[in-house]
Parts: sequence; C-alpha cells; structure tokens
Amino acid sequence: MAYNLLKGKRGIIFGALNADSIAWKVAQRAFEEGATFTLTNTGVAMRMGETAQLAEACNTIAIEADATSVEDLENLFKQSMEALGGKIDFVLHSIGMSPNVRKGRHYSDLDYSYLSKTLDVSAVSFHKVLQVARKMDAINQWGSVVALSYVAAQRTFYGYNDMADAKALLESIARSFGYIYGRERNVRINTISQSPTLTTAGSGVKGMDKLMDFSERMAPLGNATGDECADYCISLFSDLTKKVTMQNLFHDGGFSSMGMSMRALTQYEKGLGCDCECGNDEPCGEHIFD
Amino acid sequence: MAYNLLKGKRGIIFGALNADSIAWKVAQRAFEEGATFTLTNTGVAMRMGETAQLAEACNTIAIEADATSVEDLENLFKQSMEALGGKIDFVLHSIGMSPNVRKGRHYSDLDYSYLSKTLDVSAVSFHKVLQVARKMDAINQWGSVVALSYVAAQRTFYGYNDMADAKALLESIARSFGYIYGRERNVRINTISQSPTLTTAGSGVKGMDKLMDFSERMAPLGNATGDECADYCISLFSDLTKKVTMQNLFHDGGFSSMGMSMRALTQYEKGLGCDCECGNDEPCGEHIFD
Amino acid sequence: MAYNLLKGKRGIIFGALNADSIAWKVAQRAFEEGATFTLTNTGVAMRMGETAQLAEACNTIAIEADATSVEDLENLFKQSMEALGGKIDFVLHSIGMSPNVRKGRHYSDLDYSYLSKTLDVSAVSFHKVLQVARKMDAINQWGSVVALSYVAAQRTFYGYNDMADAKALLESIARSFGYIYGRERNVRINTISQSPTLTTAGSGVKGMDKLMDFSERMAPLGNATGDECADYCISLFSDLTKKVTMQNLFHDGGFSSMGMSMRALTQYEKGLGCDCECGNDEPCGEHIFD
Amino acid sequence: MAYNLLKGKRGIIFGALNADSIAWKVAQRAFEEGATFTLTNTGVAMRMGETAQLAEACNTIAIEADATSVEDLENLFKQSMEALGGKIDFVLHSIGMSPNVRKGRHYSDLDYSYLSKTLDVSAVSFHKVLQVARKMDAINQWGSVVALSYVAAQRTFYGYNDMADAKALLESIARSFGYIYGRERNVRINTISQSPTLTTAGSGVKGMDKLMDFSERMAPLGNATGDECADYCISLFSDLTKKVTMQNLFHDGGFSSMGMSMRALTQYEKGLGCDCECGNDEPCGEHIFD
Repeated sequence: MAYNLLKGKRGIIFGALNADSIAWKVAQRAFEEGATFTLTNTGVAMRMGETAQLAEACNTIAIEADATSVEDLENLFKQSMEALGGKIDFVLHSIGMSPNVRKGRHYSDLDYSYLSKTLDVSAVSFHKVLQVARKMDAINQWGSVVALSYVAAQRTFYGYNDMADAKALLESIARSFGYIYGRERNVRINTISQSPTLTTAGSGVKGMDKLMDFSERMAPLGNATGDECADYCISLFSDLTKKVTMQNLFHDGGFSSMGMSMRALTQYEKGLGCDCECGNDEPCGEHIFD
Repeated sequence: MAYNLLKGKRGIIFGALNADSIAWKVAQRAFEEGATFTLTNTGVAMRMGETAQLAEACNTIAIEADATSVEDLENLFKQSMEALGGKIDFVLHSIGMSPNVRKGRHYSDLDYSYLSKTLDVSAVSFHKVLQVARKMDAINQWGSVVALSYVAAQRTFYGYNDMADAKALLESIARSFGYIYGRERNVRINTISQSPTLTTAGSGVKGMDKLMDFSERMAPLGNATGDECADYCISLFSDLTKKVTMQNLFHDGGFSSMGMSMRALTQYEKGLGCDCECGNDEPCGEHIFD
Repeated sequence: MAYNLLKGKRGIIFGALNADSIAWKVAQRAFEEGATFTLTNTGVAMRMGETAQLAEACNTIAIEADATSVEDLENLFKQSMEALGGKIDFVLHSIGMSPNVRKGRHYSDLDYSYLSKTLDVSAVSFHKVLQVARKMDAINQWGSVVALSYVAAQRTFYGYNDMADAKALLESIARSFGYIYGRERNVRINTISQSPTLTTAGSGVKGMDKLMDFSERMAPLGNATGDECADYCISLFSDLTKKVTMQNLFHDGGFSSMGMSMRALTQYEKGLGCDCECGNDEPCGEHIFD
Repeated sequence: MAYNLLKGKRGIIFGALNADSIAWKVAQRAFEEGATFTLTNTGVAMRMGETAQLAEACNTIAIEADATSVEDLENLFKQSMEALGGKIDFVLHSIGMSPNVRKGRHYSDLDYSYLSKTLDVSAVSFHKVLQVARKMDAINQWGSVVALSYVAAQRTFYGYNDMADAKALLESIARSFGYIYGRERNVRINTISQSPTLTTAGSGVKGMDKLMDFSERMAPLGNATGDECADYCISLFSDLTKKVTMQNLFHDGGFSSMGMSMRALTQYEKGLGCDCECGNDEPCGEHIFD
C-alpha cells in the first residue's frame, strides 16, 4: 500500500546489494511512495550484486562510490543532485563490514588494522557522508538522514565482535552531527536499531539462526523483517517525523525492552531439562565467533 | 497535507480539552487521514472544554468517561465499538494531573493522598484502559496504543514534582503491558516523550516559559509543537510502524540527546556576566515549585 | 575482611527478615565496618522473622515500623537518633511486596487495590522515609541512602508482574528526591539494581530457579550474591562515593549489559535441538505467573 | 583517611601527567590504601610532566609507553609484573586526546587522519591494553579495570567535538571486552563518567569555565572533583565491587540525572532578562569550538 508520503522528495540510498538487503526494500518502498533517488554502492558490491537491476526497476541510476572516500562522496552528491534535479531530502546509510569477523579474528585477538577498517567503513563513513553533504549544502532544510544500527551498540552479543563498537560509534556520530546539522539546516539524523535480519551480510554469521530464534521468541511481536524496516524508514523520511532527531530508534518487535519472555524461557528450560545425547554443559565449540 | 494513512482505522482519543490540547490536534489529523474515532474526557473536562465542538467537526461523538473508572472504560469501549462499527485500531492516552502541583505542595512535602491521585490519574489509568480493552478483546490485531510522556521520567526537572514519578510509572506500564498485549494480539504500545507544550495544563505551570526557552535553545530543531506531535502520532498509528513497541520515543527536536548547545550556553553566559539590577546569585524566590 | 569504612557512622536498615535477606547481610557487614545502626521491620515480619536475633548480634535494637506509615517512620527516626546518639548517616531501603503476585493475579488481570498496595509498600514508602527524614532533619550532611531495585524496571521479565512498575517508580523517586536532598543537605540517594537473589521473598516466585540459571549464564561474572550486594552497599555508604547520586547502579555481574552470551545461547540451543519427551514447543502451562 | 582497601594489590596507572591529573590523585590514594603500582605515560608526557616525582613519592617507577603501541604495552605489563612481583590487580586508563580539538577543526570539518588518531589514542588504546593483558595473562582473577569517560558519550556538548565519539567507542569497548575478560578470568571492566575537571587537558578547552559553572549549578551535589574521583576509583578497585562490570558509572554529583535545576535555570533566567551592554541574542563568536 502506498500513500504518496515521499512525493517530490529526492534521496540517496547506500547499500542495496540484492533483494535481501534492507536498502533494497527501502528503495522499492521509496519508489512506491513517489520519491526519486539514486542508488550507490562500492564497485565490488555493484559487480557482485544486482544494484543495476534495482536502479532500472526504480527508474534511476546507480552511482559507484566508496563511502570511505571523500572524493567519491563528493562526486556522488554532485551526480545525484544533477540526476534528480535538486538538493537531497533523505539519505539511507546501510553500510557495515568487519574484516575481523570475516577473517575469524576473535574480539580478544583483533587485528588493529582490520579494526580501523571496521570503524572506517561502518561508522566514520557516516560522518564523511554528512560532512560532504553539509559542505556542499546538498541536503534540503528538514531533510532526513537514517543509518542502520543494532542493539549490540548497547549490549554485548557474543560473536558480534568489533561491529558492536562500530555501531556504538555510528550512533554517537548520528548524535554529534545531528546537533550541528539540525541547528543549521534543520536536517534530522537518526539511527534505526533493527532486529537481526537475514541479509547477505547477516546470513554469513555462524550462529545467526539461533540468535534469530532467540530474539524471535523474546520479542512480543517477533523480529522485524526487512520489509517492515523499509516501512519504518519511509515514516522517518516523511514529513510526519520532522522533530525526531539524534535518536536511536529500536525497530525490533520489542526485543530491546525485554528481559525475559515466557516463550524464550520455556525454550531455554527445555535445554536445561534435556537429557538427549548432545547434552553437555560446556560450549560445544561449534562457534567460530564467541 | 493528508495521505490516507489511517483509512478504515477506528480509534479512541482521550484528553482533547480545547484547541491547545495535543489530543485535539491528533483528532484533527486522524480525521484528515481517514480515521473514524470517538473522543472521550471526564465530565468536568467536557463541560469546561470544547470537546463537543471537536466531535462535531470530526463527525463523531464524545463519550464521557473517567479514565480511573473501570466501569466507565468498559462503557467507553462498548459504545465506541458500536458507534464505529467494529474493534479499535488505535488509542491515544493524553491524561495527566497532579493535585500536589495544583495545590502547591512541594515534592518534599507531598500529600500522600494527592500522590495516590496523581499516580492513579496519570499512570494507572493507562493500565486500566489496556486491561479493559484486552478483557473485552476490543483492539484489533496490530492495533497501536500511544500515551504521552515527558523526559522528566528520566531526568529531574525542578518543579515538575510528582508528575515525574507518574510519567516513569506510565512508561513502565507501557513496557509491561506491551509485552502481554504484543505476544497475544500483536498490539503495540509506546509512549511519546514530547517537548514541553503550551497546553492549558502546561501553561498553568509557573516558570514554564523559561523552561521552554531553555529547551528551545538546547534542541537543535527547537521544541516540537503540538501539531508536530499529532503528525508523529499518525505515523505511530499507521501501518508503517508495526514492529515498534515497548518504546519511549523522544519527539523533542533533539533535546533529550543534548548536554549543552551553543545557543543555550551563550544565553546562560549572559546571565553569568549580567550586572544589571536583578543580578543576585541566589534563587530569587519567585518560583512556587522548586 | 573489614576496613573500618563506616566507623562513626549511624544508620537505619529496613527489611532484614532472616539470614537470607540482603538487608541482613548489609547489617552484618555494616557492623563489621564499625557502624552503629538500628534495624526495622513491620510487626508481622518481626514476629515471623529473626530480626531480634540479628539486633542482638549487632548490639543494637529492632524498631517496629510500617514503612507506609508516616507516623511510624517519624517514631523510627526519633528512636533511632536517640538510640544511636545523633543524626543518621546511611539508610537501606529493602522493601517490596505485591499482593497481585501473592494472590496469583496476572498482569493483565490486576486487582487495582492490590496494585495500589504494591506501589505504596514497594515505592511510595521510599518517598515517605525521605520526606520524614528531611522534615526532621534526621540525616547528616553527606549522608547516603540506598534502595534495592531490579532490572525489571527497565526491561520486562515475564512473571515479575506489577513489581516491575513499582521498581520503575522507586527509581524515579530516588532521582526526584535525590535532587532535593542533594542540593539542600548533600545527601545522596541511589538505587542498586541487584541480580535475582534467593531471599525468602524471591524463593517464593515460581520459575525463579530458571531465571536465575539464565542470568547466571548471561552475566560474565555470574549473578551477584546477597553477600556481594552487602559489600557494594558498604562502598556506597562510605565516604568513597560522595558524589554518586540519583543513579541506578547495576550490581549484576554484567547481566544488564549483555544481549546474549555464549553460555546462555548454548543452553538455549540445546532446548532447540532437544527431542526428549518434554519437548513441546508451546509453553507448558506450569507457570503461575506469565 | 585510609582504609587499607588495596593492601596487597598491584596496579598500573596510565595518564598521571601532573598534580592536576585525575590519574595522579588516583595514584596518591592507591598508595595510601596500600597498593603497589607502576605509573606510565608517553615519552613526551613524561618529559613535560612530573610523572617521575610522583613515582618517587609513591615509591615506584614510571615506565614509558605509548598506549597505542602493542609492543610498548607488552613491555609495560612485563616490566610492571617484574617490578611489582606478580600479576596485576587493577588498571586505570586515563587517556584522551583529539588533534581535531587541538588544531581547531570543527566537528563539521574534521580532518579524518586526525579523527583516526583521536579514536586510536582515546579509545582503541583501551582495547590494546586489555588484549595485551589477556594474551599475557597479566591480570589476576577478580582484577578491576577502569577507564575515564564523560557524559558527552551519551549527549552532545557543543565543542566537545570528536572526543564525544571517542568516549562512546571507549564505553563500548569496556562492555565488549568486559564480557570476554569477565567470563574467562572474572576481570571486571567499567568506565567512570566523571564531571568536567580542570586538568591540564581540560583547562585548555575554551568555554570550559562556563560549562563547569553550568554543570556545577545543575548537579545537586556540584561537580565531582578529581580527588573525589580518586576515591571512587579506589572503591572500584577494591573487593567491595567485585560484581560490578560492563557499566558506565556516572560520578558527577547527579548531573547526568538532571534535566533542569532551580539554580541553573535561575542563572539562565538572568541571561534572558539581562539588558546590560553585552546583551546580544546571537552567539558572540568568542568560541573557538562550537
């Protein structure tokens, strides 16, 4: 269902790799809601993913940009404003990557050049997007910027590794820049703390299925899907939320406000009482990341 | 501007006293967005306010109910479902009152029967609304319930008195019942922590103007108005936010995430340097509530 | 091990029922640390518990007082100051009770007179203690007041029922009164959010053992015991923490900052894979409180 | 006053530059409490500061180490264990520096190599300390690690610049590593969020005096001093706080829980009413960092 919520608005969407990406779904919904926008991704992602098809479906273009490169970002904003015919009204930042996770480096054995890369790609890139946009005065008054985060920024989830620290940094940048950009140009900046979602990135994490089962049973409404996240992004890009800024907004079916649900504890209890073969008390060592 | 976001949805709106009320503005916006709803208030409020005119403008009825009375609430839900032709999709709880504030009782000299009244009217009434609705199965799957709160639930504002404690209790009830109603019927329950707003209730508080000046200068986007709050409520009643629950959502132009802004500190600094007559260092005793 | 941390300090300790009580352990530790103090409890609790023996062991007296009675509290402070020979330096509030829990009323079927009792006993009593103390000027400059809370004030734990709301109210009162008493008399007021603990009160809650197992495996340091809580209270009563006020301090082995631990998820996973007899997917209905 | 709280404990203290440093005061208090420890700082800091004199006064040695260098940290732990005769029981991390602040780069005009340096020195160094210690198994069971932070990690303070993001990252690292080190070796890791303090570092920030005036009037107990912070550190290194971990602990006289105090608003109000010469409404441009 569409409401014309973004009619006349122009945007830039980072991170639509394929149909599993949250950014992909945001693009589709933004298109339905009457927005025009450009898509962007790194060169590698654009070659391995299907960003070009999405661009076609949304009647737009995909612009290659490395979000850690100020030069690329300048070019991206310039090209986007040209292509869309004016300044930008909304931006989605859906970028995250940890070489430590990819290479199986435990959090107590981090490679520090990898950590630097994690922070640069997953968090500092957000500052760069904002700093470039502001210097170019590329975002309209009352524009809306959203970055995707995860509750690991507040609480430790084993295996989430240095991405937790990157998300905490990302959320801080949203606050810090939200102050500057808000007071000067009324641009609002928020993060959405989304349920674990089976994207291409997410599905690579071992143990992800168990974590998703747990959070599904903890959250009274269950995990939020990528499609639901897209809907929520639309509401944050729309004019209905003009005074919401510098917030980290949980979109997780209630998970973040749960300590223990009956469903999750019942499941947990079965583990306690289980006397089938597997039943050892120690971690079984199947986890790469712990 | 209207988007048909609430087309086909039925609601109940508590607390629309007059055109300054946030609930009044929510009713107007909900009407524009295609919702049908009933209005409700206490008998006293309905006689001293203009709820009836609003009902007429929104082509609906106003039902008298004391939100602390289970019986009244049962009647309200029954009549509302009859009048609207089905179960309810959204509820706004905009109710708060402190006899201690009204009677000028300081927080360190509370009258405990007044405190009991403050908690009952401003917080427990929310539980009653939810318990009655659930027992009558009066809210549809994926319904949305919102109560209005204030940041004093997290941080102490002098003069806000026992209303701070009532808001903390209100927000806790939203979480506690949000779990129950979410897992059973997918009903979501949230609070909006709104900027100080010059409603009839708010304007009676001495020193309110200074506090509003301060928060206006602290918040990068300035204080959120009642109209903007109404827009935000619409987004929370709409299908775009189905997986947001058990949250306290700050709608305050960024105030809650600010420690100190340049504008507010500049103003503060002038007070430090001020050598005009009034310039005493001690509180000047003009404040009823401190 | 004792350090003389409370030498010369006078206190009042609420809620020492028997040797399982946290307040009991606090009394023992305070005694070791050189404090003098009175004990207090309701008449019923003093008759069914062993407060008198503890008083003897600590070379002090137990004073009967209903913490919801202003008159009783006035008498308590008066008698305590007489017995101890001066104003009070520290107070422990360890009081909580829910008739709804006791009578098996579900959170969606609360008896509202019971709820009123829950709030009055578990939270408003704290305000009464503070208001009485301040009016009598019964607490010394730089005195320290602590109340015991639980993380259910922030996140919903199924079965914790209306005690969650009471704890949220309690923590708000600590902040609100902390401001008043701090600015006037430098008295600090904090809450400790303690791990679930097997006290007489706690052990009556069905499912408590499973919850404790879960939090034991979630918390990297395991659950905090009552003895450890007593140590922590000593630090908060001592002069080492004079500028800590209006805080809710988690004393829980890290539980509150965990999203998911390897140990807890491993256990959970066993439940997922379990195919022994009990293995049904639905809640098994054994829980009184859900 | 001393209590022998750290008798027999061995520590490492980072960041004691001169008598204004919090770390300096922690060292003095730790010495009084019976601890033995080494001091450490960068070469530059050791040459421009007075770390050597402090070492002498505490009957210990100062070891040069760049906390961003894994090699230096390995050497530091090795030498410290040799000098102290065993594994370490407590560590204080009091390190922070922003080239962007020093060079007057506004938050919306960051130099990204400077930002990288800010994060590396002020936050990632903490991970390095912990990773090195754990790999060398250099910290005893139930050891305690504390890093100093500031409330800017949660709320934006104008002028605090990229240090806010660094502190958010620091606090996240404390949680993430607190989980690992806790479950394996019962080592606890916390941050203290300290009032603004006039250290050599702090006093260089323009506008610091006004901010300190504001927070002094907001906090019911006033700003916490460096000496008081040292006392608080002692309590966290002692055995009284063994189950406190992964927490950010506000030590700020209540500032963090205040929304508005009477004293601060009275001062603010004077600025509003001020009609002396200086009285312009716009920021006066005296601020380097805004």
